Amino acid sequence: MRSIEYKAEPESADALPAPQQVRVGIVGYGTVGRATAEILTSHAEEIRQRTGGVSVFVTRVARRTPRPGEVGVHGIAVTDDWRKVATADDVDVVVEAIGGTTVAGEVIRTSLLHGKAVVTANKALIALHGEELFALARAKNLPLGIEATVAGGVPVIRAISEALAADRIQSVYGIVNGTCNYILTQMERHGIEFAHALEQAQAAGYAEADSSLDIDGLDARDKIAILARIAFGHPVNAADIPVSGIRNITATDFHYAHRLNSTIRLVASAERTPQGVHIAVQPWLEPRGSMLAKAEGANNAIFIAGEKVGTQMLYGRVAGGNATGTAVLSDVLQIARQRKLGHAGASMLSGFSSSHPLPITGRPNPLSWFLRLTVRDHPGILARSAEVIAREESNIDSVVQEPHMPKDGLSFVITLEPTLEATAQRAVAIINRFEFMKAPVLLLPMISSVEEHV
Amino acid sequence: MRSIEYKAEPESADALPAPQQVRVGIVGYGTVGRATAEILTSHAEEIRQRTGGVSVFVTRVARRTPRPGEVGVHGIAVTDDWRKVATADDVDVVVEAIGGTTVAGEVIRTSLLHGKAVVTANKALIALHGEELFALARAKNLPLGIEATVAGGVPVIRAISEALAADRIQSVYGIVNGTCNYILTQMERHGIEFAHALEQAQAAGYAEADSSLDIDGLDARDKIAILARIAFGHPVNAADIPVSGIRNITATDFHYAHRLNSTIRLVASAERTPQGVHIAVQPWLEPRGSMLAKAEGANNAIFIAGEKVGTQMLYGRVAGGNATGTAVLSDVLQIARQRKLGHAGASMLSGFSSSHPLPITGRPNPLSWFLRLTVRDHPGILARSAEVIAREESNIDSVVQEPHMPKDGLSFVITLEPTLEATAQRAVAIINRFEFMKAPVLLLPMISSVEEHV
Repeated sequence: MRSIEYKAEPESADALPAPQQVRVGIVGYGTVGRATAEILTSHAEEIRQRTGGVSVFVTRVARRTPRPGEVGVHGIAVTDDWRKVATADDVDVVVEAIGGTTVAGEVIRTSLLHGKAVVTANKALIALHGEELFALARAKNLPLGIEATVAGGVPVIRAISEALAADRIQSVYGIVNGTCNYILTQMERHGIEFAHALEQAQAAGYAEADSSLDIDGLDARDKIAILARIAFGHPVNAADIPVSGIRNITATDFHYAHRLNSTIRLVASAERTPQGVHIAVQPWLEPRGSMLAKAEGANNAIFIAGEKVGTQMLYGRVAGGNATGTAVLSDVLQIARQRKLGHAGASMLSGFSSSHPLPITGRPNPLSWFLRLTVRDHPGILARSAEVIAREESNIDSVVQEPHMPKDGLSFVITLEPTLEATAQRAVAIINRFEFMKAPVLLLPMISSVEEHV
Repeated sequence: MRSIEYKAEPESADALPAPQQVRVGIVGYGTVGRATAEILTSHAEEIRQRTGGVSVFVTRVARRTPRPGEVGVHGIAVTDDWRKVATADDVDVVVEAIGGTTVAGEVIRTSLLHGKAVVTANKALIALHGEELFALARAKNLPLGIEATVAGGVPVIRAISEALAADRIQSVYGIVNGTCNYILTQMERHGIEFAHALEQAQAAGYAEADSSLDIDGLDARDKIAILARIAFGHPVNAADIPVSGIRNITATDFHYAHRLNSTIRLVASAERTPQGVHIAVQPWLEPRGSMLAKAEGANNAIFIAGEKVGTQMLYGRVAGGNATGTAVLSDVLQIARQRKLGHAGASMLSGFSSSHPLPITGRPNPLSWFLRLTVRDHPGILARSAEVIAREESNIDSVVQEPHMPKDGLSFVITLEPTLEATAQRAVAIINRFEFMKAPVLLLPMISSVEEHV
């Protein structure tokens, strides 16, 4: 290795003084807020090194209902008044970690209006009010960091917005909800029903008592809305995204999936189409050898397909405050580095550049489909179903039925050759009206070979 | 969605004017240089959007031996004099894409000394002279971007240096050489020998005519040296890293790996140890269900294990100029965004913060081991080998030998229960001296269950 010494050039006269400290105020002191504070304390030395010498430390903490006399890190008294954090002179960056879409929005607005940089892990809020909050951040020339809104510590937002900045992104898809993936993995491994797997997830701390936001796909919807916005540069209205959760997936479905050398995963996907973007959250049949199928337990696996760069995957465990706290801090430290460079207010993280929404369109390409029918035993079920499918000019690829099923709740599966989603849905709508149907058809898109993904 | 309009605040009087253009000079106009120029042209609109309105375009191109009258993008005449790019007034960022460790170093030094930001894909140069070049960049207060040195378009350097900035990284490991992974995948799939798989890789464009840097592990060594430096904040001397390539891997090894429900991958790894860091490049036996085993073909799969964030994986195809060009441009665009914020010279990318090298230590933990012995038929081979292993107080876990092997080149495998590497190596050194050995023992670390990784 050469050893040449270079002398630093004198700084130019108009350079701003580089701040050597960044003071963090935390609003919400539950799992994420506390983990954020604790990592800042325990990893102070690494952080100083990574920011080129900036000290980043907590000066204020608020939570809705502090215990009497509660103190945070550094012995800071915990207040119940978030305004004392959002407006404090000794706070440079506010970390919003209370969740919800009402008070949290006020915290962010107030903080920005008082000249604070803001970092949030609140996907519901950003999916709902992202445009408005980013507009405010831009107007105030302040950063608003959202890395922690998707996939915990897995840096997917940075990958899209910075690393792949030069590419035209074609699609973003994958597993973005660890709770659902844990439940589906348990069903797959142990042959158990959904309700039982949900209980296990709750017992293991991977699902909350009220887990409907997770299992009905709404959490995944908010996340894919954010990813699509960053990938495609335009807002999408999360409420317009079609969503199916995993409540209707049964042990029998996993059994049939296994027969088809596949498994089931809840996939959130966003794909450029000629007229806009196709976005959906729904369970998919995935071939067992694929990377998506390999993503087991409370992990996330997010694929980013760029025109030039090809397809990449980011994969990791996302549960727990430490992963999210690390993501929050990645934004805080980026702000710290910017401030060191003299940019108290610069806005590299204000990612949403257009306010013109992208229309959500149908799925552009034909796909194979998995139809699970649950019926009362009755003559001619297969013939009548097949006739409907033929009338829609769709082709049956296979019919799978286990022997010895109960007569009053017989499940069998029809798979279709590649067909447009609208066609498959029309056939399903007709079949659903048949008198022998015990429950609506479960219609899942199928990836039939690993090569269709990466 | 709310619709609130916020008025932009007037910029403060001392704010620098935000440059609306960044002029790129490209030195080296082979696959990577050309792809970089072409993506800048074809994706100009996306790039303007992602940088908040900065035009990024090529103004100068140099290559060693331009064809007579050769022009680059925008009809720019290609010069054979790189100094005309590195010193040009109309260049803000120099992209070094010539490779090698001599002229390339001069290009970077000259560019920095003339006030240009620099972006390079040159892992050999950064592994060898990174400290010195980053010292120069810091002294000149200029960015030096190296995202493209590792894993093509997969943003692993950014993931470590920014996204996981708040965490203490414990280890970085994985597949960082697509050529080797393509060859190993072909051997695994088709049961062919190394030489045959290498020919296929060359025919498919995944290996160069002289591919020794790849197959002997030197390319992987340079990459893990860079990753370790960024992950642990200290330089490591690449020349000190123990390296074994894949030349000695045979079809028989894959056969035995398969018997052990495993496959073989070339793994580069760096792990914190109490005294420093353990770094190595060598083939590993990987259980077939693991994510590393699933990484097939010309892909990279890099795992980052952080104390708080847990283990993450970044995965993607890395071959070809477009992937590397995208990575080069991710740095160019970060520089463009900084310039827009008024930082012509700011140095967020100058990643190496310490010049105090970390000692490279032995592998800290016991591992299982795979020993393949190739012998001439002879009485007592197994007894004598087993005796050596027992004398080293290591335990044999299994012995696998196929029937009907040729008497003059019989291969069999011994696997060891978890043992320190030094112990396994001592046993191997003694066995290698036995008169019946036809070739030195192939000693590979084994991961025996998927859970040992992610």
